[in-house]
Amino acid sequence: MLFEWPSNIIMDSDRRIYMKYPNGIRPIQNKHMRKQAVYTYANRGMSLEEDINITNDLYNTSHRAVVHKKPTPIQIVRVNYPKRSAAVITEAYFQSKSTTDYNGIYRGKHLDFEAKETKNKTLFPLANFHPHQIEHMEQIIAQDGLCFCIIRFTVYDETYFIKADDIIHFYKQMEQGGRKSISYDKIQTLGILIPFHYQTRVDYLRVVDQLFY
Amino acid sequence: MLFEWPSNIIMDSDRRIYMKYPNGIRPIQNKHMRKQAVYTYANRGMSLEEDINITNDLYNTSHRAVVHKKPTPIQIVRVNYPKRSAAVITEAYFQSKSTTDYNGIYRGKHLDFEAKETKNKTLFPLANFHPHQIEHMEQIIAQDGLCFCIIRFTVYDETYFIKADDIIHFYKQMEQGGRKSISYDKIQTLGILIPFHYQTRVDYLRVVDQLFY
Repeated sequence: MLFEWPSNIIMDSDRRIYMKYPNGIRPIQNKHMRKQAVYTYANRGMSLEEDINITNDLYNTSHRAVVHKKPTPIQIVRVNYPKRSAAVITEAYFQSKSTTDYNGIYRGKHLDFEAKETKNKTLFPLANFHPHQIEHMEQIIAQDGLCFCIIRFTVYDETYFIKADDIIHFYKQMEQGGRKSISYDKIQTLGILIPFHYQTRVDYLRVVDQLFY
Repeated sequence: MLFEWPSNIIMDSDRRIYMKYPNGIRPIQNKHMRKQAVYTYANRGMSLEEDINITNDLYNTSHRAVVHKKPTPIQIVRVNYPKRSAAVITEAYFQSKSTTDYNGIYRGKHLDFEAKETKNKTLFPLANFHPHQIEHMEQIIAQDGLCFCIIRFTVYDETYFIKADDIIHFYKQMEQGGRKSISYDKIQTLGILIPFHYQTRVDYLRVVDQLFY
């Protein structure tokens, strides 16, 4: 099989790989991905989070939107202050999130979304969401924000845009004894497939435009 | 001097103090504040951040808005996974913020703000802002979001609401060789004093209503 080198990816003499962006080039940091980018095709090997971060960087630098991932909340217990150098956190714990992972603003509207990937072939387990996150999504909808989820089935390399209302609907059903997952078929029907591009890897704003404008 | 006990604060037989909210009571956790709440008056002893967090909790639980503080970004270097217990982060470093501290949604509008306090009596030093934060505020304004700063002069116990445009204006002047601070007088003129209430301790949405609706 011939491998067609993507025109926006550059390799230097040390086999270091860079991606071209409208505002310059940027090294591809992830070791695993570096290998993958050379020897395999497109998307595989890069996590949904990395893809969304790259997409958001592009949106932000091109002034199309302002979207950031919220840092993981961490409870800090002990910090050392060595002389002449930066403070070192020596004991800390992960805390669970009470909101979604991403938020921002696009065309005057508040955007709020969560991204999840699954290795499952036939269903998406609802246990991926915390009850707090569902509550948060309900509140965002009540305040007239654009709220959705991005769900990737890694085995098919397919990434779907699902309105938060649909996720909330299935979650409520589960709480009342319904099924603990959403079937892949249902997601294919309800969701919108987000096309993959080398630059805007998860171009969810295109779907937002399509649905809300 | 007689101390008048505020009607929304309750003390139990162990001298534990609780605050009454529309949706129930809640213990006042901060040790320092607990002492202060008994022996001194009102606001002193509680940080601006704590006051804003309490205010946001009230806004969120009363469904008036959805506003959260973003967690501090932390770079995690080493994590231990002891058996049968939670993962412990054993080496991590504080990262600098590229956005503002707070954001959310109110009446369909995206809110974005930064909160700073100073012990200075005559001026507010602009070094309190990172260039990235100023850039971020500009982007939020360009996307038609409501962007502002909450500045507290701790010595006067006064908290001001200042539009981000004004902060950006002074910051740009500084970059072109202008003064490195905003005078207290200027902030009194440009800003709007946010009144203090026991419950909504920094009722900034009242100012938002006043300015934008």
